[in-house]
Amino acid sequence: MNSVERYLADNYERALADLKAFCRIPSVSTDPVFRDGIQEAAEFVANRLKKAGFASVELLDTGGHPAVYGEVIGDPTLPTILVYGHYDVQPPDPLDKWMTPPFEPAIRDDRLYARGVSDDKGPLLIPILVVEAYLKTEGRLPINLKILIEGEEESGSEHFEPTLERNRDRLACDLVVSADGAMWRPDRPSITVASRGLVALDVTVTGASKDLHSGRHGGSAPNPIRALTKLLASLHDSDSRAAVPGFMDGIKPLDPTILTAIDAARFDANAYYRDIGSPKPDPIENGGQLLVRQWLEPTLEFNGIYGGYQGPGTKTVIPSSASVKITCRLVAGQKPAKVVEAIARHLETNSPAGYSLQVEPHGPGSEAFSVDPNLPGLLAAESVLEELLGSKPLRVAMGATIPIGTAFRKHLGAEAIFFSFSTSDEDYHAPNEFFRLSNFRTGLIAWTRLLGRLAGHPKLEPTMRL
Amino acid sequence: MNSVERYLADNYERALADLKAFCRIPSVSTDPVFRDGIQEAAEFVANRLKKAGFASVELLDTGGHPAVYGEVIGDPTLPTILVYGHYDVQPPDPLDKWMTPPFEPAIRDDRLYARGVSDDKGPLLIPILVVEAYLKTEGRLPINLKILIEGEEESGSEHFEPTLERNRDRLACDLVVSADGAMWRPDRPSITVASRGLVALDVTVTGASKDLHSGRHGGSAPNPIRALTKLLASLHDSDSRAAVPGFMDGIKPLDPTILTAIDAARFDANAYYRDIGSPKPDPIENGGQLLVRQWLEPTLEFNGIYGGYQGPGTKTVIPSSASVKITCRLVAGQKPAKVVEAIARHLETNSPAGYSLQVEPHGPGSEAFSVDPNLPGLLAAESVLEELLGSKPLRVAMGATIPIGTAFRKHLGAEAIFFSFSTSDEDYHAPNEFFRLSNFRTGLIAWTRLLGRLAGHPKLEPTMRL
Ligand SMILES: [Zn+2]
Ligand SMILES: [Zn+2]
Repeated sequence: MNSVERYLADNYERALADLKAFCRIPSVSTDPVFRDGIQEAAEFVANRLKKAGFASVELLDTGGHPAVYGEVIGDPTLPTILVYGHYDVQPPDPLDKWMTPPFEPAIRDDRLYARGVSDDKGPLLIPILVVEAYLKTEGRLPINLKILIEGEEESGSEHFEPTLERNRDRLACDLVVSADGAMWRPDRPSITVASRGLVALDVTVTGASKDLHSGRHGGSAPNPIRALTKLLASLHDSDSRAAVPGFMDGIKPLDPTILTAIDAARFDANAYYRDIGSPKPDPIENGGQLLVRQWLEPTLEFNGIYGGYQGPGTKTVIPSSASVKITCRLVAGQKPAKVVEAIARHLETNSPAGYSLQVEPHGPGSEAFSVDPNLPGLLAAESVLEELLGSKPLRVAMGATIPIGTAFRKHLGAEAIFFSFSTSDEDYHAPNEFFRLSNFRTGLIAWTRLLGRLAGHPKLEPTMRL
Repeated sequence: MNSVERYLADNYERALADLKAFCRIPSVSTDPVFRDGIQEAAEFVANRLKKAGFASVELLDTGGHPAVYGEVIGDPTLPTILVYGHYDVQPPDPLDKWMTPPFEPAIRDDRLYARGVSDDKGPLLIPILVVEAYLKTEGRLPINLKILIEGEEESGSEHFEPTLERNRDRLACDLVVSADGAMWRPDRPSITVASRGLVALDVTVTGASKDLHSGRHGGSAPNPIRALTKLLASLHDSDSRAAVPGFMDGIKPLDPTILTAIDAARFDANAYYRDIGSPKPDPIENGGQLLVRQWLEPTLEFNGIYGGYQGPGTKTVIPSSASVKITCRLVAGQKPAKVVEAIARHLETNSPAGYSLQVEPHGPGSEAFSVDPNLPGLLAAESVLEELLGSKPLRVAMGATIPIGTAFRKHLGAEAIFFSFSTSDEDYHAPNEFFRLSNFRTGLIAWTRLLGRLAGHPKLEPTMRL
């Protein structure tokens, strides 16, 4: 154990207290009610960077929630990495399903429970603590390091690309290392090399201009719940795949490397349904087919539906409108705008007379992403994980969306790797989100070694930065 | 103008103040949050009965919300009527659509706006004020009068029939006069002679045992919104009529008397869609067809739907469950229990593997009702309305449900007529419910005369009281 790693071990309790303090801040980005939490979390990160020894720490005005920037530039001849993470979190509802309140971090069984602890507050705190350990013990880093922590990841990163664009000189780097992302399974080291894209839209069907009494008007008035459910039922085929003309346009053939990883993974379909606690479908697909669906196929999912009375008992009302929230995961070749257009066209074509239809996309969406399989940064990360975790990590795809990959490539000309220590079973985006503290400790050592190993990373020529 | 009518005119401002005070009480029966409002409203009615001069005033323990009872028995040789009404009201949401708060009564354009003012607080206060006027001026009523005001009408009257059953001797009467119900249109006097029945049920589809991240699980996990919307889409045919095997079983042929009234009404379909503020369906049915749908056909309406995320922006979640609230209006011949059974069977048959389905009926429901066309009480009521409003009232059916008709017949052996001064366009069960104060004043005179005219009503033999 070198002096940096010893420092991290000696200061572990303090690191844990920092993480708890961070998790107490309700930095939900999708809901304006939490605006104060967003500001407080951004300031928390900026102060923690300063305390760690970062220079040039500031809140970048993005036009939306601020991003936090800092840097430690020692020797211009060394390569420079840009660390990415996000301080915003998902909404905590349904609140009644949390065993302890979402913004009161609690430890049970060496896990820290809190909204955002796994996605992404725990993972992003690790590189900050590692930089501090290097500076306190060795007085310098083995490479140059910049860090950019945004506050809109969970709400679609609307202002992220313009912020990269405006700050491209300052953010210039040879490699992006994302602290966001997740290990695939707790029992098997993995590294993410591809992720699905995302588009989000709201659909509202309106009938009468006000709520009506279902006794008087039932049978003659338009019922927007009836119209909406009929419309939604037309969006999938009997295999639950999107059945929307144009939706699949441009999709590329499946990546054989990832199909190999899927084979090696021996994913257990029965265990999957048992784990998520749902009855088994009939017929049940095999594990490989399920993983292909999760990683390599596009989806059209309903995330929320609402209209009319939702309280206890009965209210005999015909509501004026009903709405659904949709997100689609995209795979290589799909264009976000085209997908939204295809869905909107299908809904308009099938919308019955007697109703009005409103389709509202949230932001521009993001394309699917994949890493070059020979990228030196990827190989360095793999060697650190193999050394620490005992076996070569599986190269996996990710069903979830990390739009930053394509964004950094486009605006900074830099490739990105995912080096996160959260695990995908940690209930981020659900009640009782947690972070394994064993992975918090492993992540501290892993980042320490990764920074050392990246000292030999090739530097990009400035002209290669687009 | 006789002395009773003069008394009512002289004390109109005080009557209006009473109505406002009554409407300030949030007596929502469907939601336990309003329990105090229920109790307060029951006590308000009891105190107002005592103040008016009623004897034997008490709150009847029903097993649910209390019913209020009182009586004025002068001369046992005179006929006895039982007045019916309900002090409970519909939930006020959506709150943001009210121009003034639902429980802060406000007068605009000779209308009183408040939740419950039209259904049924205004109409039920009228006979109480009329009894008071008789007792203050003449010291007696022209007939014997009992009154029963329940507190569960808007939540399905679960305990009403057992209460009638237990109190059948005390409630014995020759005719029931309901202050609940509504005139059909503001421009044309009408009297309701039939109403549709009602059943209510909640349906929930559950997939996984907890909410899941739609990135990781999208494509492989069950989505209960998808399953629910597909199920609901199977419940109606392309004409928006219920397409559930067994749903229509037992339905009797349409009543020709009411078809005649529908013809006379010359209902304007274009005006209807304009009034409710909805785009016109295509093809548009004629007005007569629409009225047949409202009055004489059964319905299966979705009153509310919910599941997953409903806040601003996006939450990439696959919810654990999704639910819908359904009510059906029933016509003559349909049995409530059979209808629920038919829907549950259809849903179970069509529910896909991989989900669990829960169907929960609310109470036993109620059958459709119709009045004997030659009932002396009906003829008396018609003559009063014709005298006061200038033309013979139209005999109309009611799309909404007034389950009391069948209940009084079954438990007391007494027929019921509807003598209400609310109008069906007064947005009961919607935001900005109001009551026309002109009808409040007309109602006071009409009830005064009706009590006089019913003095000659035939008395039932005690043996005829079942
Ligand atoms: Zn994240
Ligand atoms: Zn009512």
